[in-house]
Amino acid sequence: MPQISKRGINMPESPIRKLVPYAEEAKRKGRKVYHLNIGQPDIKTPEVAIKAINTYHEKVVEYSHSAGNESYRKKLAKYYQNIHIDISHTEILITTGGSEAITFAFLSCLNPGDEIIIPEPFYANYNGFAVSAGVVVKPITAKIENDFALPPVSEFKKLITQKTKGIVICNPNNPTGYLYTKEELEQLSNLIKEYDLYLFSDEVYREFCYDGNQHFSAMHLKGIEQNVILMDSVSKRYSACGVRIGALITKNKEIINTALKFAQARLSPPSFGQVAGEAALETPPEYFKEVYNEYIERRNYMVEALNKMEGVVCPKPKGAFYTVVKLPIDNSDNFCKWLLSDFEYNNQTVMLAPATGFYSTKGLGMDEVRIAYVLKIEDLKKAMEVLEKALLAYPGRKE
Amino acid sequence: MPQISKRGINMPESPIRKLVPYAEEAKRKGRKVYHLNIGQPDIKTPEVAIKAINTYHEKVVEYSHSAGNESYRKKLAKYYQNIHIDISHTEILITTGGSEAITFAFLSCLNPGDEIIIPEPFYANYNGFAVSAGVVVKPITAKIENDFALPPVSEFKKLITQKTKGIVICNPNNPTGYLYTKEELEQLSNLIKEYDLYLFSDEVYREFCYDGNQHFSAMHLKGIEQNVILMDSVSKRYSACGVRIGALITKNKEIINTALKFAQARLSPPSFGQVAGEAALETPPEYFKEVYNEYIERRNYMVEALNKMEGVVCPKPKGAFYTVVKLPIDNSDNFCKWLLSDFEYNNQTVMLAPATGFYSTKGLGMDEVRIAYVLKIEDLKKAMEVLEKALLAYPGRKE
Repeated sequence: MPQISKRGINMPESPIRKLVPYAEEAKRKGRKVYHLNIGQPDIKTPEVAIKAINTYHEKVVEYSHSAGNESYRKKLAKYYQNIHIDISHTEILITTGGSEAITFAFLSCLNPGDEIIIPEPFYANYNGFAVSAGVVVKPITAKIENDFALPPVSEFKKLITQKTKGIVICNPNNPTGYLYTKEELEQLSNLIKEYDLYLFSDEVYREFCYDGNQHFSAMHLKGIEQNVILMDSVSKRYSACGVRIGALITKNKEIINTALKFAQARLSPPSFGQVAGEAALETPPEYFKEVYNEYIERRNYMVEALNKMEGVVCPKPKGAFYTVVKLPIDNSDNFCKWLLSDFEYNNQTVMLAPATGFYSTKGLGMDEVRIAYVLKIEDLKKAMEVLEKALLAYPGRKE
Repeated sequence: MPQISKRGINMPESPIRKLVPYAEEAKRKGRKVYHLNIGQPDIKTPEVAIKAINTYHEKVVEYSHSAGNESYRKKLAKYYQNIHIDISHTEILITTGGSEAITFAFLSCLNPGDEIIIPEPFYANYNGFAVSAGVVVKPITAKIENDFALPPVSEFKKLITQKTKGIVICNPNNPTGYLYTKEELEQLSNLIKEYDLYLFSDEVYREFCYDGNQHFSAMHLKGIEQNVILMDSVSKRYSACGVRIGALITKNKEIINTALKFAQARLSPPSFGQVAGEAALETPPEYFKEVYNEYIERRNYMVEALNKMEGVVCPKPKGAFYTVVKLPIDNSDNFCKWLLSDFEYNNQTVMLAPATGFYSTKGLGMDEVRIAYVLKIEDLKKAMEVLEKALLAYPGRKE
């Protein structure tokens, strides 16, 4: 039997998926499992998007333009112009989810063996896209005691080698909920300029910025326009993860033209998803206000509840809908597994994501978990109660 | 400004896309352009598929399972069982079009630098997926004088090196319309066994087999079950190219598990597309009969019309809806461009795909074009008339 590929072997398994069999087992035992482990919000997809699908009336579901429907790209360009990102529809490539935008960005800009620096903890699937592209991830550790702010530029410089070709940021951040400030982005910008690197900016949580903080996009940076690749998605903005529509955006024509060749090979992004994505641009402002208020309420409740628990430290996330929390535990993988296999409180338990999966440096994240506040407040309250009891009962508790 | 990646530079541009600006120019001049260049059929998508989308009623468009919805995979397993391919739903991974199935197959099975043998002319995008994966394509030339039958095994053996890891076939074939016989597949099977290679079998045109010829699948081969990866798609079967739903199928658990890791990184295949794909499995048999009759009529008309033209040789395709035709021309790229820029007959012209784009060996396909019979018979008749006039008028005509 021929061998599986090396990258297939090196391809990381999702840190959350490993727990799925244990969650299924818990459910089989009749336990209620509160899912705080995933980025799948319970928020309704805007009705305009569903309606567009329900009234789809083409007779032949044809390939679209490989860069996505022009009508959609033109409206999307307006969406960006409204948030002061000056781009035209020719600078947008519609992708199959944000995932494909990342893949196309890596394939177009990076050679196998090239290095990219990513502040950790980071979205675990960056590892997978890097392995697929043969690219080496060099992590730079952000610290919970600084609320996971951008590590100092001097630390970045220590990691830069001849092979370094880019920096990846996620802003607002998954998994930390940190929102990079304009000043932090300008520090990054200087670094990008000095070493002539690419800046890959994942901004899929752009709409989720709290406490009056404004989102400052990598596309707002002056002087590095040719170095910036924005990776975006409709998944979180419209709670429409399954439509699989994202975008790669850049002012750099060479990158767009190159990415288009990868896009042509796979023919086109999904037609129905594009219809839904285009319609979603007409989502009324009240929708976002409601969603915003919902997340604020959840976050505030959760952060307060967590920080009240003995030995727990939870920074207050300024964006997205995640937080990385420090827990008084020996090993987050074991703890998250134990929650599902051994623990129950009134026949309930919680599923969390061990933070180890979001760190690239071995040994980090052992006393941290990622919590996604994607459950309605009643459930979140119950989940926090369960977590509190669990931390007291966990045999591997550390003070 | 940082450099584009080498694979980005090496990424081939679609041989057809290069002609698009000329087609647009012809249309601006008011010319009717008959598109015989693309695999986008004019056949209606089954109503059951559209209806499923029109009645979609989920409130949140969630991620699906990374391998695709279980209900869909279970029904799809039955579809395969009905055509005597013995697989279960756990051996199916739903992908974003057949394209992603090819990508996952290459990434899971092949290392950068590995070689795959593909009979040429072949589907041009295999080149793109190979470049993305860092895999080297070794072409083996099929000859028009043999109707593009499988080249002799002895020719394959000449190409096999230490780096050869697999053979890719497309059956029925795009671009030639050739349908491999059971005997040819058994010859391949012996080769696969002898050298322990992977057999990547693209069977997206399975339903399009004519003149009483039965499709023999690579999955029907005995003794190489662990070596076969089937790559499939709903695009052609249901004339639903835009839904972007395909499948990777294999009895090899290690490959399925590895491909699943790549699938998890990109989260899930499109939700709406899966709904349409699942519903399409209920397409009534009359639909396929009608489509079949339509293609037979088109093919018969076209083959006869082409072979009547002086200097033209068109094998009779036994499957799919393409044919590669030999024309009395000096250079197929120039000819196809000339058709759009310079030629018109009663203000009409035709767009064809130069066969050079389907050959990996430089210099081949210069006197051949691919014709897709995806137009209704009235248009096909006009297109054939235009082509006949064009061949007489073309300055680069060769006898």
